[in-house]
Amino acid sequence: MEFAQILCMNKGGGETSYAQNSSLQSKIISDSKRITEEAVEAIISTSNNTSDSPQSISIADLGCSSGPNTLLLVSDTLNLLYTKCKRLGYPLPEVQVFLNDLFSNDFNYIFGSLPDFHLRLVAENGGEVGPCFISGVPGSFYGRLFPKSSLNFVHSSSSLHWLSKVPEGLEGEGKRRMNKGKLYISSTSPRSVLEAYTTQFRNDFRKFIKSRSEEMVSGGRMVISLMGRKSMDPTTADSCYHWELLAQALTSLASQGLVEEEKIDSFNAPYYAPCMEEVKKETEKEGWFVIDRFEEFGVEWDGFTGEAENGLKILSRGQRVAKTIRAVVETMLVSHFGGHIMDVLFERYGNIVQHYLSNHRTKYTNLVVSFVKK
Amino acid sequence: MEFAQILCMNKGGGETSYAQNSSLQSKIISDSKRITEEAVEAIISTSNNTSDSPQSISIADLGCSSGPNTLLLVSDTLNLLYTKCKRLGYPLPEVQVFLNDLFSNDFNYIFGSLPDFHLRLVAENGGEVGPCFISGVPGSFYGRLFPKSSLNFVHSSSSLHWLSKVPEGLEGEGKRRMNKGKLYISSTSPRSVLEAYTTQFRNDFRKFIKSRSEEMVSGGRMVISLMGRKSMDPTTADSCYHWELLAQALTSLASQGLVEEEKIDSFNAPYYAPCMEEVKKETEKEGWFVIDRFEEFGVEWDGFTGEAENGLKILSRGQRVAKTIRAVVETMLVSHFGGHIMDVLFERYGNIVQHYLSNHRTKYTNLVVSFVKK
Repeated sequence: MEFAQILCMNKGGGETSYAQNSSLQSKIISDSKRITEEAVEAIISTSNNTSDSPQSISIADLGCSSGPNTLLLVSDTLNLLYTKCKRLGYPLPEVQVFLNDLFSNDFNYIFGSLPDFHLRLVAENGGEVGPCFISGVPGSFYGRLFPKSSLNFVHSSSSLHWLSKVPEGLEGEGKRRMNKGKLYISSTSPRSVLEAYTTQFRNDFRKFIKSRSEEMVSGGRMVISLMGRKSMDPTTADSCYHWELLAQALTSLASQGLVEEEKIDSFNAPYYAPCMEEVKKETEKEGWFVIDRFEEFGVEWDGFTGEAENGLKILSRGQRVAKTIRAVVETMLVSHFGGHIMDVLFERYGNIVQHYLSNHRTKYTNLVVSFVKK
Repeated sequence: MEFAQILCMNKGGGETSYAQNSSLQSKIISDSKRITEEAVEAIISTSNNTSDSPQSISIADLGCSSGPNTLLLVSDTLNLLYTKCKRLGYPLPEVQVFLNDLFSNDFNYIFGSLPDFHLRLVAENGGEVGPCFISGVPGSFYGRLFPKSSLNFVHSSSSLHWLSKVPEGLEGEGKRRMNKGKLYISSTSPRSVLEAYTTQFRNDFRKFIKSRSEEMVSGGRMVISLMGRKSMDPTTADSCYHWELLAQALTSLASQGLVEEEKIDSFNAPYYAPCMEEVKKETEKEGWFVIDRFEEFGVEWDGFTGEAENGLKILSRGQRVAKTIRAVVETMLVSHFGGHIMDVLFERYGNIVQHYLSNHRTKYTNLVVSFVKK
């Protein structure tokens, strides 16, 4: 089956749903907010250089998923646009918003929430809003999704660390088992596995920026945030240890006969956490974009700040991490391992993570990059 | 509840689903095909006048629903565009397609079928296709859905006979019961009921063409088809007798105590079948559009041509009509009468229709109108 048909967040609003377990991704959007705001402000300022206020602005959110975060970016962006236009005395522009995710994403859930979203938008802006047209665009962002020179602002949060597929170098009967007992790059992985992952990321990232370079207007802005790593070494804990521990949980199930070892050997996650240098290098190669700003910051594995009052607080950190990861990777694991082991797997994983975090201070590294289209 | 939230075709793929019972709507698309083709061809020819082939074409299908007909218009239009461009030696344009329906429409079903749709499109055109970007746009077409001057071609089939709401003049405790024992205009309806329906249609249709006049480029084309009537008299059988018989079926259930009479008295369908003169008059009032061509044709109540070999053939005509109507109006009736009477109601309706059709030769009248944006 095509990867594009099996990667989707857990649907609905139940206990294991992405909607209920996406506070990590929400934290990342919030931490990236300042850079996103600067880019949005620049769209208005740029059009001011031509002594015209923008009549119409097109925005795309790539990998929008469906949950409480989906419309967060849209609402932040619109509020900021309206505030800035009012301050400058500009008429409010017409805004066209494209929400993109893979074909299997739950767009009905998003669309069902739009009538309330529009009411909230009007209320938050004291009734002064411009026309806003929201549509859903299904498909992979590793190819073209929009007509030429049609977008002013592109955003993508917590999506670009998903590759378009399992690395090409790890496909085929023999190769698939080169990374025995692991799910992703590990400190014991052979060099060929590292190379397969790096090459797939480069190819995918190049397809991504090539497609966007065709779709965006000159001077348009793009902000992406994705999981990454601080070190040049792809085997560092901040980029891969959550996969290492998931492999441990599966191996422990295998020792009880609940999972075939062969199944673990043949699974390779279509994921890659790059370092900033890799992102810069791929961007600079073609010269379609200039990198305006970049930042890397650490995020707790559960996205938890310790401040919020919510139900998750009573869970152990290990359990919270397990729920966050489960909401994202379950559909993918089910298609390979079957659904019957999911509850026991993520309980085991939660315990392993809890034990690990009590001895280690590991955080995810999140990269945020702001681009200007030449 | 807002009407926009309760009007939707029966979902899924079961026996009473719209997907299984939309051959009437398919027949209407097929009967309107020649006019639609002319309009699509005109888009290419118009751009030829500027001695430029079109680089990018935007198409919107308003009230697309979700079933086998949803992508029919898109696929016909794209095939025609590609054929015509190839004949003229033009490069194939980028096409952006917007599929619109109300917020409650099953867009996930449509999006899930897009990967296969793209494969078929490539196969049907011998591999020679241009980039085609399909998106879903939820919302009512009685308001703005797209940015200014952004559309080249607008299409709407079997949707515009649905009003934005129950006519304003029939709202409120007392007024709602002005049309006792009927669901729509009937030969015994008081004049005020006729006027309420006519006024609501005029207001809605004006909102529709005003919104489109803002969204379409000058020279853009629009083709609409909708249920209508041949006569100026809104009580003629071709425009309202299917509602008359549905009222008879409900009244017969009421006589058995299965439905409260008051429920029938207080239901007024948000539907209107105009005559061509009304459509022309509303269009000419503002002068945003020129009517290029129009046509009215009769369609059998079950959309059945007698030629097709399919499962429906073994049903009586009455049963086929009942299934066709049920797939479209059930959600609306359920929210007013409750779901428990639907099976018995549509069985009764099928029998009444069967008896009626054995004595009468009534057809629906379908109007097709092709517009040019000034």
